[in-house]
Amino acid sequence: MGGGAREGEEVAKGMDRRRRREVLEEVVAGGCCEGSRVREGDLKPMDAEQLRENAHKMVDFIADYYKNIENFPVLSQVQPGYLRKLLPDSAPNRPESLQDVLDDVQAKIFPGVTHWQSPDYFAYYPSNSSIAGFLGEMLSAGINMVGFSWITSPAATELEMIVLDWLAKLLKLPDYFFSTGQGGGVIQGTASEAVLVVLLAARDKVLRRVGKDAIGKLVVYASDQTHSALQKACQIGGIHPENCRLLKTDSSTDYALSPELLNEAISHDVAVGLIPFFLCATVGTTSSTAVDPLLALGKITKSNGMWFHVDAAYAGSACICPEFRHYIDGIEEADSFNMNAHKWFLTNFDCSVLWVKDRNALIQSLLNKSRVSKKQTFVPRNTYHSASEANMVVDYKDWQIPLGRRFRSLKLWMVLRLYGLENLQCYLRNHIQLAKHFEELVSQDSRFKVVAPRKFSLVCFCVLPPCDKEDCANKLNRDLLDAVNSTGKLFISHTVLSGKYTLRFAVGAPLTEERHVNEAWKVLQDKASALLQSL
Amino acid sequence: MGGGAREGEEVAKGMDRRRRREVLEEVVAGGCCEGSRVREGDLKPMDAEQLRENAHKMVDFIADYYKNIENFPVLSQVQPGYLRKLLPDSAPNRPESLQDVLDDVQAKIFPGVTHWQSPDYFAYYPSNSSIAGFLGEMLSAGINMVGFSWITSPAATELEMIVLDWLAKLLKLPDYFFSTGQGGGVIQGTASEAVLVVLLAARDKVLRRVGKDAIGKLVVYASDQTHSALQKACQIGGIHPENCRLLKTDSSTDYALSPELLNEAISHDVAVGLIPFFLCATVGTTSSTAVDPLLALGKITKSNGMWFHVDAAYAGSACICPEFRHYIDGIEEADSFNMNAHKWFLTNFDCSVLWVKDRNALIQSLLNKSRVSKKQTFVPRNTYHSASEANMVVDYKDWQIPLGRRFRSLKLWMVLRLYGLENLQCYLRNHIQLAKHFEELVSQDSRFKVVAPRKFSLVCFCVLPPCDKEDCANKLNRDLLDAVNSTGKLFISHTVLSGKYTLRFAVGAPLTEERHVNEAWKVLQDKASALLQSL
Repeated sequence: MGGGAREGEEVAKGMDRRRRREVLEEVVAGGCCEGSRVREGDLKPMDAEQLRENAHKMVDFIADYYKNIENFPVLSQVQPGYLRKLLPDSAPNRPESLQDVLDDVQAKIFPGVTHWQSPDYFAYYPSNSSIAGFLGEMLSAGINMVGFSWITSPAATELEMIVLDWLAKLLKLPDYFFSTGQGGGVIQGTASEAVLVVLLAARDKVLRRVGKDAIGKLVVYASDQTHSALQKACQIGGIHPENCRLLKTDSSTDYALSPELLNEAISHDVAVGLIPFFLCATVGTTSSTAVDPLLALGKITKSNGMWFHVDAAYAGSACICPEFRHYIDGIEEADSFNMNAHKWFLTNFDCSVLWVKDRNALIQSLLNKSRVSKKQTFVPRNTYHSASEANMVVDYKDWQIPLGRRFRSLKLWMVLRLYGLENLQCYLRNHIQLAKHFEELVSQDSRFKVVAPRKFSLVCFCVLPPCDKEDCANKLNRDLLDAVNSTGKLFISHTVLSGKYTLRFAVGAPLTEERHVNEAWKVLQDKASALLQSL
Repeated sequence: MGGGAREGEEVAKGMDRRRRREVLEEVVAGGCCEGSRVREGDLKPMDAEQLRENAHKMVDFIADYYKNIENFPVLSQVQPGYLRKLLPDSAPNRPESLQDVLDDVQAKIFPGVTHWQSPDYFAYYPSNSSIAGFLGEMLSAGINMVGFSWITSPAATELEMIVLDWLAKLLKLPDYFFSTGQGGGVIQGTASEAVLVVLLAARDKVLRRVGKDAIGKLVVYASDQTHSALQKACQIGGIHPENCRLLKTDSSTDYALSPELLNEAISHDVAVGLIPFFLCATVGTTSSTAVDPLLALGKITKSNGMWFHVDAAYAGSACICPEFRHYIDGIEEADSFNMNAHKWFLTNFDCSVLWVKDRNALIQSLLNKSRVSKKQTFVPRNTYHSASEANMVVDYKDWQIPLGRRFRSLKLWMVLRLYGLENLQCYLRNHIQLAKHFEELVSQDSRFKVVAPRKFSLVCFCVLPPCDKEDCANKLNRDLLDAVNSTGKLFISHTVLSGKYTLRFAVGAPLTEERHVNEAWKVLQDKASALLQSL
C-alpha cells in the first residue's frame, strides 16, 4: 500500500464509514500517485521508447530460444508442484527489472515447458509457430483492440472476411462458404469452439421447428474416432449424453465412419421418435488421420434434414495442395467446415477457421442482445447505422461464444503473404515426405509394424512383442513411449486403435528436418531393443 | 501450384484414380519442394536469425505506432467495405516482403483501426495494453505451446495457479478461491466465457439433483443492468429465455439490484414450481458502474441453495486499492468471482480471471472425456500418472470451453512483476482521479448534468436541452455523441439509463493524461454549443 493510503487511514480515523472512505480515496489519489508519474527509472504503463528498448531485448531473448531449442528436453521432465517451490508467494510491491524476469524464465519457466516448437516434437499434432505468425501476434498485441463489432475496428472484421475468402479459395471451397454469399468464414479460438457454435446453431434451428421442450429427443452422430470436443459440445448445449451416437469404426474402413452404419442408426432413431439433427464428420482424425467419406455422408444428412459439420482441424491445411484436395471431395454437402490454421499452417495458436453456409443460423443462436439497442451494444451511429441497415456490416461477436476478440486475422494474413501459396505447399509436402520416410524406416525393421495407413504426416505404429508374449503388447508399447519420452530427445504420444495401444509419430514442427526424424528413429530402436531384451 | 505438381498431373494422366493420386503425390513431394528448402532470400518457416531480424523491424514499427498514436482519428472513419477495395482478391503465390506488409498496415489497415490505446479513447471500457503486457504476449507467442493439460507444459499450468493466487491475495479474496483449497483461479478468454462456464457448472449441479428433464424449470436472476453475456450464456446452456429474470433497477438504488426484489422474485418462482439456481451480481456494471450489494444478495442465494456469481469484469481491478476493496465486501458469499485483467489492469487482451469455490463443479461440466483414457487425451505416463493419482495436477482444459489454451499467465505475471503493487495502485487511482476531474468539469457547466454517481473511472452525463425542448433530449445527446466521435479527436460511447440516452466518459487508456481529458471536454463543449445554437 502506498504512503498516501496509510496517511489517509490516519486522517480518516474516527469518521463515519462513508465519510472515512471518501477522505481515504481523496488523500490516496492526491498523495502517492500524482498524475501517472512513476518513480524515476520505473517502467511506465506505456511509453514508446521504453517499449522499443524492452521489446528489442525480448526479441533477442526469443531468437536465442529458437537458436538453442534443440538443447532442451522436448517433454518437460519436472515434477508436479515444482514451480511453487521456486517462486515467491506474493506479487512484489515495487517493480522488478525485465532482466530479473528473463532470468527467471530461463531458470524456472523453461524447465517446465514442453517445447512444441522443437524439431524433435512429434506428439499429438503440431502447433506451428512461424516467423510470420509470430510477427502477426506481435502486431495484434501492439494494436490491442477488441474487435467485437465492426465499428470497434472495421479493419479487424474486414481483414478477417477477406483473408478467410483467400483461404477458402486455396481450399477450393464451394461458393456459399465465401463472405460474398449467405455464409462466410470466422476465426474461432479452437476447433472445440467451432463445433460448439455450429452444434448450437443446428440445435436452435431444429428447436424452432419442433419446440424447445423436445431437446431431449435430439440426436447427434459421429464416429467413435471423433474428437472428444463433440461430446463436450453436446454436454454444454444440453443434448442428452445418451443421444450422442459415436458409431463404431474399425480397420476395415481405416477407421472411417461407414455411411451404412449411419443410415441404420438414423432409421432406428427416427423409428423410436427421436430427432436426428447433427452429423460431425472428420477429415484426419486425431487418432490416425482417418477420413470420413464426406460425399456419401453428406447425402444422408441432406435427405434427413440434418446439419453436416466437417472437422478437418489438422488435415485441412494439406488440402491447399491439389494432390490432397480430394480428401475433402463432397465438402459441397456440408453446412460448416473447420480447419485449424494454428495446427499445421504456420499460424501461431490460436486460429481455428470455421466456414458456415448460412451465417444467420449462427447469429440466431449467438446474438448478444443488448439492453441498449436491439442490434448493438454501445455503437455510435455516424457511418455505422446506414451501413448496418444495408446489411454490409458483420459483427463477429454474434458468430462466437465470447464477446471480445483479438485481431487474429493479421497473423493469418501475414502467413499467407510472407510465405505465399507455393512455399506453404512445399512446407506441407515436406512434412508428409518426412512422415513417409519415417514410415519406411519402421517398415524396414521387422520388430515394428505400421498399424494404420499413413495419409498425411502422421504414422501410427507399434513395436511387436515376441510371439510367445503377445499379451504384453500394450504394456510393451506403453513402456517404449515412456522410455523414449523420458530421454527428452523426442516427444511422441499414443492412441488406442481397435483396443491396441498404438504409438503416434506426427511430423509437423517448423524446424524438423530429416536428421531429426532419423535421430528419433534411432532412439526408438535403441529403447525397443533394451525393452525386448529385458522381456 | 508448383511446377512439380503440374508435371505430376501430366505424368498421371490416363491412370486410374487412386494410382494417379499416388503418382501425383510422389512427383510433387520429390519435385518442387525438396526438404524444407525454400528459394534463396525467401523467409523460412522458422529460423532464429530471420526471426531476430524481422522481429526487430516489427518492434520499431510498433514503437513508432505508439509514438504517433495521437495523430490517428481515435474512432475509425472508414466506410463499410473499404478494405476489400484496397486488397487483392487472392493470396499471393510467391512470398512478399515484410516491408510490403508493413506499408499496407500503415496505408490500408490503420485507417480502419479504432485506436483503443489512444490517450483520447474514452469509450466502452478500456482494454489496456502495456509494455509488460505486450512483452508477455511476445514471450507467449514465442514459446507457442498449447497448454491444455499439465503435461503439455507444466510451467503454463503452474504459473497460472501461482499468479492467480497472487492476484487473489491482492484482492483479499476468501481462502477457498485459492488453488491450495478446493477452488482456484483460471484464466478465461472473456467475462462471457467466465459466466458461461459457471452457469453450466451450476446448471449441471442442480440437474444432477432434480433430473435433466427439469431444465425447463431452472431460473436465473440478475439485474437489468447485467451484461448481455448472461442471456447469451443462458441461451447456449438451454435455459429457457422466459426463465431469465432481469430485475428492474432505477436511480433510487443507483441502478443496483435490490435484495427485496430478488427475494420476491424467488418466492414467486418457487411457489409456481420453478427452480431458482443462479444469481449473477455485478460490481461495476457496463452502463454506469453500479455495484450490487453482494452481502445481502449472497445470503439470499445461500438460503435458496443457488450458485452466486460475481461479475467485476471492469471494477475488480480497483479493488486492489484498500480504499476500493469495500465494493466487494460480501465476496465470501460467492461461488465464483470474475475480473478482466485485460480491461483495466495493463494485461493485454485476452485475460479474464475467474475464481471458483469448488473446482470440481466446473470439471464435472467441462471434462473432455477422451476415447483413449478416461482422464486424459494422449498423456504419457512417466512423471504424470503418479502425480495425477495424488491429485496434484490441474488440467485446465476441464475448466473452460476450448481444449487448447495459450500461455496467458506469462503476461499477467510480467505485469505484476514489472510494475509491482504500488505502481498498479497508482495507475488505477490516477484514472479515477482523472474521471473525477472530468466530473468536476461537467458539473461546472450548467448546460450539462452528471446522471449517475461516479464510483470508479466512468462518468455518465448528458447535455440538457433548453427547457422548452425537453422531448429532444435523447436526440440532442445522440447528435452530440456523433458530432464528437466524427471529429476523430476522441471516442466516447453511450448507454441508456431509465430510458434516457446517456453519454459515457470512461478514463482508462494507459497514455491518458489530464491534458487529454481537458481537450476532450473542450471538444464536447464546442460541439454542444453548436448543437444547442442550432435548436
